[in-house]
Amino acid sequence: MKDEIIDFIKTCVEKYEYEGAVIGISGGLDSAVTAKLAADALGKTRVLGLLMPERDSARETLNDAEEVCDFIGIERIVKPVTKGLKAIGVYGLEHSTRFVPRKIQELYVKKRIESTEGDVYLKDLRNEGDEDFRKGLAYYRAKHRMRMVCLYLEAEKRNYAVLGATNRTEYETGFFVKWGDDSSDIEPILHLYKKQVYELAEQIGIPEKIRNKPPSPDLIPGVTDEQMLKMSYEELDSILSAIDRGENLSNFDTVKVDRVKKLKNNTAKRKVKNLSLLNR
Amino acid sequence: MKDEIIDFIKTCVEKYEYEGAVIGISGGLDSAVTAKLAADALGKTRVLGLLMPERDSARETLNDAEEVCDFIGIERIVKPVTKGLKAIGVYGLEHSTRFVPRKIQELYVKKRIESTEGDVYLKDLRNEGDEDFRKGLAYYRAKHRMRMVCLYLEAEKRNYAVLGATNRTEYETGFFVKWGDDSSDIEPILHLYKKQVYELAEQIGIPEKIRNKPPSPDLIPGVTDEQMLKMSYEELDSILSAIDRGENLSNFDTVKVDRVKKLKNNTAKRKVKNLSLLNR
Repeated sequence: MKDEIIDFIKTCVEKYEYEGAVIGISGGLDSAVTAKLAADALGKTRVLGLLMPERDSARETLNDAEEVCDFIGIERIVKPVTKGLKAIGVYGLEHSTRFVPRKIQELYVKKRIESTEGDVYLKDLRNEGDEDFRKGLAYYRAKHRMRMVCLYLEAEKRNYAVLGATNRTEYETGFFVKWGDDSSDIEPILHLYKKQVYELAEQIGIPEKIRNKPPSPDLIPGVTDEQMLKMSYEELDSILSAIDRGENLSNFDTVKVDRVKKLKNNTAKRKVKNLSLLNR
Repeated sequence: MKDEIIDFIKTCVEKYEYEGAVIGISGGLDSAVTAKLAADALGKTRVLGLLMPERDSARETLNDAEEVCDFIGIERIVKPVTKGLKAIGVYGLEHSTRFVPRKIQELYVKKRIESTEGDVYLKDLRNEGDEDFRKGLAYYRAKHRMRMVCLYLEAEKRNYAVLGATNRTEYETGFFVKWGDDSSDIEPILHLYKKQVYELAEQIGIPEKIRNKPPSPDLIPGVTDEQMLKMSYEELDSILSAIDRGENLSNFDTVKVDRVKKLKNNTAKRKVKNLSLLNR
């Protein structure tokens, strides 16, 4: 698993004549694993970590991201995207959180999600919901897109490749932002389910603190991956991989199987890109 | 040509359950044609034109873009991206042009391109050149990416699709910004060479002023498409379509045929996206 990815990163970077790689370090598991493997493939001095906190980022995020870079031994640049997001009117879409303690913000978000009719994440996948809900979608998605713009700004100055950190579980359930965290030159862990990323993380020695924290997109205060997906990654991955391999699903909870199928069947809008009459 | 595209836009928007479409109006030909066809397909009230000038945009650009929207009869929002670009440090990559008259800016750029060793556009395609040159690449590309972020911000608030306006000539020669103007939901004219876009523009009555101005990416003062491509679109299209159809090329200027082939063969870095081990 590990050697194949290291080899893949090296081959891609050589083939396209990049001089190194830049990666957004979120403080989470996926980017930590990707960055570590990139450093093993290209050498620490040819990998740059970009840390891009914004107004709503959890305070511990930046610390964790710094720790990840230090652990790997790569250069890091902190480039907050708050001003950029503010300048294009993103924060105007939601109430200011300036004087609201984090815990209250998280409670408010939790209440709002609970009071939203229907399945929040399914509605997100389908761009459904009322005006207020859709404003929330535009709001959180702009953050990952702005980060992508910043990643390429740094990459192109250096003729570096941009590495993405999307995993297979996220990809199959649409758990990414179109033209945001899904947009990169190389996706070293796209073929791995989240549970495989965990295994790999342990194997390559990613600090326990990073491996044990609950996965979160860190886009809206308090919202975690599993809260949106409505099951643990362990359950989700077991069902997903069984579906992908065409295995019998009768051993699984039918409600959960139905939900996973629903997610897989509703990623069309997230995945639709550049529809055209060329080559038809 | 026209009816097929109108039908295509309508079908895509219905299939993916969008409520309308947003398109960046540059004041140029391609976005004018795309917006007009979108209005014909969806109705004027369901198409939004977004005008996104920035510090270096030519003054006439915004006027032309406004004229295009008025001609089609669609709503337009002017949303300058200058502040957003400034906030993430884009303008810091090039000298300030604040007190420099436009003509002098254009002369300066022209001199700089002429004094750059080698083939500027080929170097651009390959991310080659010295640090200064690469800063220029990062500089101009961030502009289209920032516009993409703004297009999706408006689109997602409304559950609208984002329409792109890339044509086949641009696509085949890499004349676009990766994750910028190439990133959209629907690309209604991607199958048309630039000369076909001109024909279509005349057919659907796009104002002569828009049809007759020299095509320009309007990213760097004074730089036009044909200056970068080093030949007219007419020549480029004739050669490109002959290559695409596998026709005999002996009637063409061999220097120009070589250049077109060179462009086509050097788009790999522009087109490389999300390389992964999934489905290998």
